[in-house]
Amino acid sequence: MEGKEEDVRLGANKYSERQPIGTAAQGSDDKDYKEPPPAPLFEPGELKSWSFYRAGIAEFVATFLFLYISILTVMGVSKSQSKCATVGIQGIAWSFGGMIFALVYCTAGISGGHINPAVTFGLFLARKLSLTRAVFYMIMQCLGAICGAGVVKGFQEGLYMGNGGGANMVASGYTKGDGLGAEIVGTFVLVYTVFSATDAKRNARDSHVPILAPLPIGFAVFLVHLATIPITGTGINPARSLGAAIIYNRSQAWDDHWIFWVGPFIGAALAAIYHQVIISAIPFKSRS
Amino acid sequence: MEGKEEDVRLGANKYSERQPIGTAAQGSDDKDYKEPPPAPLFEPGELKSWSFYRAGIAEFVATFLFLYISILTVMGVSKSQSKCATVGIQGIAWSFGGMIFALVYCTAGISGGHINPAVTFGLFLARKLSLTRAVFYMIMQCLGAICGAGVVKGFQEGLYMGNGGGANMVASGYTKGDGLGAEIVGTFVLVYTVFSATDAKRNARDSHVPILAPLPIGFAVFLVHLATIPITGTGINPARSLGAAIIYNRSQAWDDHWIFWVGPFIGAALAAIYHQVIISAIPFKSRS
Amino acid sequence: MEGKEEDVRLGANKYSERQPIGTAAQGSDDKDYKEPPPAPLFEPGELKSWSFYRAGIAEFVATFLFLYISILTVMGVSKSQSKCATVGIQGIAWSFGGMIFALVYCTAGISGGHINPAVTFGLFLARKLSLTRAVFYMIMQCLGAICGAGVVKGFQEGLYMGNGGGANMVASGYTKGDGLGAEIVGTFVLVYTVFSATDAKRNARDSHVPILAPLPIGFAVFLVHLATIPITGTGINPARSLGAAIIYNRSQAWDDHWIFWVGPFIGAALAAIYHQVIISAIPFKSRS
Amino acid sequence: MEGKEEDVRLGANKYSERQPIGTAAQGSDDKDYKEPPPAPLFEPGELKSWSFYRAGIAEFVATFLFLYISILTVMGVSKSQSKCATVGIQGIAWSFGGMIFALVYCTAGISGGHINPAVTFGLFLARKLSLTRAVFYMIMQCLGAICGAGVVKGFQEGLYMGNGGGANMVASGYTKGDGLGAEIVGTFVLVYTVFSATDAKRNARDSHVPILAPLPIGFAVFLVHLATIPITGTGINPARSLGAAIIYNRSQAWDDHWIFWVGPFIGAALAAIYHQVIISAIPFKSRS
Repeated sequence: MEGKEEDVRLGANKYSERQPIGTAAQGSDDKDYKEPPPAPLFEPGELKSWSFYRAGIAEFVATFLFLYISILTVMGVSKSQSKCATVGIQGIAWSFGGMIFALVYCTAGISGGHINPAVTFGLFLARKLSLTRAVFYMIMQCLGAICGAGVVKGFQEGLYMGNGGGANMVASGYTKGDGLGAEIVGTFVLVYTVFSATDAKRNARDSHVPILAPLPIGFAVFLVHLATIPITGTGINPARSLGAAIIYNRSQAWDDHWIFWVGPFIGAALAAIYHQVIISAIPFKSRS
Repeated sequence: MEGKEEDVRLGANKYSERQPIGTAAQGSDDKDYKEPPPAPLFEPGELKSWSFYRAGIAEFVATFLFLYISILTVMGVSKSQSKCATVGIQGIAWSFGGMIFALVYCTAGISGGHINPAVTFGLFLARKLSLTRAVFYMIMQCLGAICGAGVVKGFQEGLYMGNGGGANMVASGYTKGDGLGAEIVGTFVLVYTVFSATDAKRNARDSHVPILAPLPIGFAVFLVHLATIPITGTGINPARSLGAAIIYNRSQAWDDHWIFWVGPFIGAALAAIYHQVIISAIPFKSRS
Repeated sequence: MEGKEEDVRLGANKYSERQPIGTAAQGSDDKDYKEPPPAPLFEPGELKSWSFYRAGIAEFVATFLFLYISILTVMGVSKSQSKCATVGIQGIAWSFGGMIFALVYCTAGISGGHINPAVTFGLFLARKLSLTRAVFYMIMQCLGAICGAGVVKGFQEGLYMGNGGGANMVASGYTKGDGLGAEIVGTFVLVYTVFSATDAKRNARDSHVPILAPLPIGFAVFLVHLATIPITGTGINPARSLGAAIIYNRSQAWDDHWIFWVGPFIGAALAAIYHQVIISAIPFKSRS
Repeated sequence: MEGKEEDVRLGANKYSERQPIGTAAQGSDDKDYKEPPPAPLFEPGELKSWSFYRAGIAEFVATFLFLYISILTVMGVSKSQSKCATVGIQGIAWSFGGMIFALVYCTAGISGGHINPAVTFGLFLARKLSLTRAVFYMIMQCLGAICGAGVVKGFQEGLYMGNGGGANMVASGYTKGDGLGAEIVGTFVLVYTVFSATDAKRNARDSHVPILAPLPIGFAVFLVHLATIPITGTGINPARSLGAAIIYNRSQAWDDHWIFWVGPFIGAALAAIYHQVIISAIPFKSRS
């Protein structure tokens, strides 16, 4: 027990713990931070609260703006023969990641700033919100995404339909398994960052964690796009994939569409398991 | 009433509220933060205050520098045959967005850091500043923008006039309605971010909100440019559009010019309504 | 006197002041923050302090690393026929701006993080440091810059000499007056940002100012490069211009070299005057 | 002794010290911050602590994700004839630097967020962690890197092997000495930033230092890539170089491989010496 002090030095994790490896986790009265209890599956009171519906509206508007800006950027790049005369593929990655940064920043205090059914699913698995709220969020996100892609199509229908409509598909040369793998790991990166940046334990230990949370979350989206745009166009957000698929509505978009639900949900589940089982397994005790 | 607790969990909004949905908003003595009273339309005392004029000077200088750097960047990209040998269209987007980030950071404490008549208009609709101050800011912003574009023209008049002068126009292939829509939604993104980042309620609830405020505001400008440069060159700032139009002064710039006033003002008004009616509708009570 | 309250509302500056416009500034006992007294011209005790010499070493190392990374990036872009196969001109702008961000962050606590004689000059004019220290810093910055450019030349001398050596020159098509003007306004943007981000008054008023200071300062350098690389290659830092000119040492670099000292020093002086005379003219009183 | 006050002004370092230059450093009771004692070489208790193994797992996962995203981005750029139709070389630099930003942010509280044997080595030289922990971290980092590169190869083996596999090699036209020098200075930039951003002394003096620490560290990686991708592809991380070399496994990758261990370790050692001997040499005393 007396050998635990070295864990708290600089370069290692900064907080000691009480029990040796392999012992059971201690009770919550040993913790120095307040962790909220697991959310119930159904919470009838929620449905009578204005803030519940407002959160849904905020998710709708945020996902609408996310699709509008990002798919419009994709169209501007796709329609040009020379990518040099556009913001380029890198500009597309900035568009997706930057919007998530700005929108998480704006809506974090209203709805938690999910803007992505995979994020909602991961947080639901960790019991951070009720099933009622999770389903409501996902519906509002999908509706917002459909509207956002629809407005982009409204600007120039020929251009939109002629350039793939921003829909996610597995690129030629890659198997469906590659696409599924890219979606799983990509979503893992995103949801792992979300868990790390919003974890109640880390918030209590490191005061700087919540201050910058939207920035690494947005960067995670940007980075996954840099890597996997050549493979799938990068989904890691089933609402974004569904919105573009419904508005584009051609068979090549629908053929691969399951990948952009199964992949992100598996990735989000793995990130939730990794965070809950490995990272948060044993309660910490701050140095007094 | 007892069902409100679940609103405050992680993943949802973190503050409970007192009344069930649909009841009238409670009085201000129920709030845990100080919201300033609505600004009066006319405030005679303001006109005798040095800080009023200093704020106007700061808006003038900031808008001058904004146009100078951004239009000069546009000229450097436009004059080159190969966009690859320039900072590219993405560099133009960084220039507009990055300047707003730096200038809001620098002038927020002096004038509020508007640098954009649409932002001033949106904040005026929310009664955050008096009509006197709003009109004064807009005039100083437009004067600064004209001077900034004028200096760029002074460097190389032939280059400036031969490359469109950085003036906003609806690109061929798009209707005027497309351009107007792009300006409305684009300005909505910007002014919605401004409201979210500077809201007095959120400042009281989330201590990290004001710390990073200039960064998402600058990013919002960057992101809208990524998406709508191919459509209108991106205005979302009537002073920026007016400055370039006056210095360029050709009929194709003036023909579409109304779009870059009507669009941003509608977008700013929608953002102000969305924020005041939906997001801030019912006062919050922090968990004690 | 009672009309001053409206200055403190959101959207305007947040602090009221005591006296009507045009009256004399009140004494320092009225201020709610501690402003350091003006630095003396000569401070003999400084020369016996280890921290004085350590600050000089830190400026040397920082300017060395600044030139090494940025000039090496310029060389990597210059040597390639197709700019598309390099980080591009935008990458050069990121290199200069990003290094200033990282280095100001690292050295701010040791030397103040100037890394630029124009910044040192501007802060000296505002009496933020002694003449002794200012001259010592400038010498160390220039020595560091020479060494940094020298190491880049050492990697591949033929490549370095064949691609302009990263030296600043006025591009063909622009007059020397254009170049001088670009340097003046560009340095104004940088030094104005430095003053805004480190101002003692704003630090006292807005707690978030010092937290992000290196970021807008680095962005200012990035943005000026986006705009003026096509005109002068962008100096706004006499040490950077001198280091490249000495190592490159050809007549075309020396012919324009005065521009990259006169321009930045004029720009820094204007920023110091603007900040001291307009922005900081009248002491503020925080709302109690 | 009384001449020390000027060290604390704005523009210089903000904290005075007690003793004149050249005198011996005072005892630790004179310090106003708690510096942890040097870590012992071997700490048997560490091996019984769950947090020790969890830190290793976190390093493994972070280095896995780092290689996966960054090498996949490299492949996407390499396979395309026209770099304009990809995220470009600049996108590769963002990928490496951005992942370090996000991953340091996520793992700093668990393992210290090294993700790089050179960083671990530098912190070990400064006695920030035990030899046991340092060796364990390095092994986990290398294993993670091998797995990350392996998954990328698994997506498209032909593409991976045909485009260099993301392995670090000295480019033609540069000597091995050039490559070694580039690795040394590049790693110096990174490890110097790590030391500056996490130094216990600076944390005590400047409250904003830890808040933004992951951002300048990630930027340092980005900036070194901008400069040295044309020379070596940029290692500055022996685990990243080893992972790609093992999975690529061709002689041209192995011939230069020693450079990507010797260079980073020398650079990290120089940064540790610079920080410990010059920057942290004499204890500071905060103004009371």
